[in-house]
Amino acid sequence: MVSEVYLRRLEKCGALMKAARLDALLLTKPANMFYLTGDGRLCAYAMITQSGEVALGVPRTDVEDVKALAHFDRIAGFEDEVGMIHSIAHHFDDFGIRRGAIGLEYTYLTQSMMAMVTHPHAKPDDVTVKDCTPIMSELRIVKEAREVASVRAAAKVAEAGMKAAVEFATPGVTESQVAGAAEHALRNAGAEEFWRTYVSSGPRTNIAHGLPTLRKLERGDMVMIDIHPIVSGYSADICRTVCVGKPTADQRAAYTLYLEAQQATIARARAGVGMVELEQTLHGVLKQAGHGDHIFGPPMHGVGIEFEESPLPPGHAFFHGEKAPPPLEANVVIAVGNCGLYLGRWGVRVEDTVVVSADGSEVLTNYPRRL
Amino acid sequence: MVSEVYLRRLEKCGALMKAARLDALLLTKPANMFYLTGDGRLCAYAMITQSGEVALGVPRTDVEDVKALAHFDRIAGFEDEVGMIHSIAHHFDDFGIRRGAIGLEYTYLTQSMMAMVTHPHAKPDDVTVKDCTPIMSELRIVKEAREVASVRAAAKVAEAGMKAAVEFATPGVTESQVAGAAEHALRNAGAEEFWRTYVSSGPRTNIAHGLPTLRKLERGDMVMIDIHPIVSGYSADICRTVCVGKPTADQRAAYTLYLEAQQATIARARAGVGMVELEQTLHGVLKQAGHGDHIFGPPMHGVGIEFEESPLPPGHAFFHGEKAPPPLEANVVIAVGNCGLYLGRWGVRVEDTVVVSADGSEVLTNYPRRL
Repeated sequence: MVSEVYLRRLEKCGALMKAARLDALLLTKPANMFYLTGDGRLCAYAMITQSGEVALGVPRTDVEDVKALAHFDRIAGFEDEVGMIHSIAHHFDDFGIRRGAIGLEYTYLTQSMMAMVTHPHAKPDDVTVKDCTPIMSELRIVKEAREVASVRAAAKVAEAGMKAAVEFATPGVTESQVAGAAEHALRNAGAEEFWRTYVSSGPRTNIAHGLPTLRKLERGDMVMIDIHPIVSGYSADICRTVCVGKPTADQRAAYTLYLEAQQATIARARAGVGMVELEQTLHGVLKQAGHGDHIFGPPMHGVGIEFEESPLPPGHAFFHGEKAPPPLEANVVIAVGNCGLYLGRWGVRVEDTVVVSADGSEVLTNYPRRL
Repeated sequence: MVSEVYLRRLEKCGALMKAARLDALLLTKPANMFYLTGDGRLCAYAMITQSGEVALGVPRTDVEDVKALAHFDRIAGFEDEVGMIHSIAHHFDDFGIRRGAIGLEYTYLTQSMMAMVTHPHAKPDDVTVKDCTPIMSELRIVKEAREVASVRAAAKVAEAGMKAAVEFATPGVTESQVAGAAEHALRNAGAEEFWRTYVSSGPRTNIAHGLPTLRKLERGDMVMIDIHPIVSGYSADICRTVCVGKPTADQRAAYTLYLEAQQATIARARAGVGMVELEQTLHGVLKQAGHGDHIFGPPMHGVGIEFEESPLPPGHAFFHGEKAPPPLEANVVIAVGNCGLYLGRWGVRVEDTVVVSADGSEVLTNYPRRL
């Protein structure tokens, strides 16, 4: 992508850094590095100054590859961890940063990674550190047209993956094989990657994070399939619940209710509406039907470079660390239907990726919604 | 699995905790929870006391599922993050832990997760925290017979995945599709899950962490395929490099050299040998041939519940946070061949999972090693 895009993002980033009194960011989270430079990878870092200069550090094996992909001003190849620490010190020196404050990703860095990037041989003593998660969220929350186009492409691929999984979900196959059918289809339909696939069946549809097992599908089982392809660096998020064979009246009623809650929430999504209001809408329909005790997890979340990102309703900080987000704006992308309806013996969930506009929203994942 | 296994592990854990003056562990890393209780999942925690009592906290949706899988003494279902924090406080109270020290996973917890589990409403003020990574590594490093059997099963599945990928690696298909062929075969061969697949081709085989892209394979390309299935909770790790069509003399020479280095290292692995010595063996062959500047990353690492775990050679703490490990013992499982030979235009890597014994080692991943 042309550097102009990154220069614009870096300029906006610099303004937010100035307001937060941060002299630089030291990023190691691939999604954030990808957003600001065009390349995000493991075992690498990006130092971003307030004036928009970018210094990268990558394994020395990767220097040429990164040069072809990233927008940057300086690049250092390191050969090991000691080299990485020294290259960070070198960049601090080059930028003349000897005091002040830098931003680190508190929602990404483990304690031990933190110790590494703030090592006395890396960071000048008089430079303090602060969380820069809110800055990166604010930058990434409203999508540019090119970003929406990529999510749209990922949503098409997600539909192909869901079709393959649903068709494969027959008695005797394992949850893992259903996941495999989805993933194989995602890659063949043009996904370069995908986030972890969730497939659960029977009683396992009642758990919050149903990673696939070797459980074999049985007639009458509910099957919950949640997939997240990545296309051109952007994700889509779709979940469907289907029944193996003919659903019971109870299963049908629960499904219909959840779908009603999800659709009511999507109908409400537009610029100016808050995540809390959307959460209340989805929960409201379920609570109204007496299911206040049968829901778990945030009912919606942002979608972009990551399949779960800002905005999130407040109160779900453990794995996300986000603050309460501002009201939705046009071109925010969210997934609606992330909390399930868990009835004990089984659960249902229907989730779609939706792009918000000034006067409504558009659903990007359109695989049929039926048991 | 029978609780006896967990009781034995918990007893050993208690002894290590006592030596480290820790009154309890508060674990959130699924791999560690799985080892000590038989169940590890996202959005959950396990509190382990010195006397081997286990208190779990899981989403309330998951309580019945966990009850059927885990060894535990107490269990709390929570409905959200506030509930989780309060349930932690409740367990502290139940166990009568009001002061002293607890162990946390500094190599797993992000800054924001750390803030959560040490929240004043969760943890008594007079309880201090310390890293318990060394304890969990020491516990998990030597595998029980049942664990080796699971890695062995995963290694068989890995061979099936590699076969599918290598056969699919033909001109015109994408790296992502090669990964898809491998993953699909892993799931059909009995893997319940797999860790992220790495497939790189052509010039991309020169980078350290070659996640798949939409690059299409061309005749003459090197293709590097690194896969990690999970069977019964245990992983295997295999990497092969193949050439699309007939390799050049240079490609053949580099491959032969790397294979020589890898095989020399495997030949050296036995109880009593240190990771540093193995590292020097592998690096030694490559350096001897003038390639000291063409290697990157730790040449070996442990394999078990995680595909990359303890032991690691010292000096690779950034993403692992490990201290230098003791000499190998029988029934330590390692992957040998994790550092590549990176020659600029392309690279090669051959990696196998190996179980160490008193007088040698056994290679568990036996897919043919040829370009």
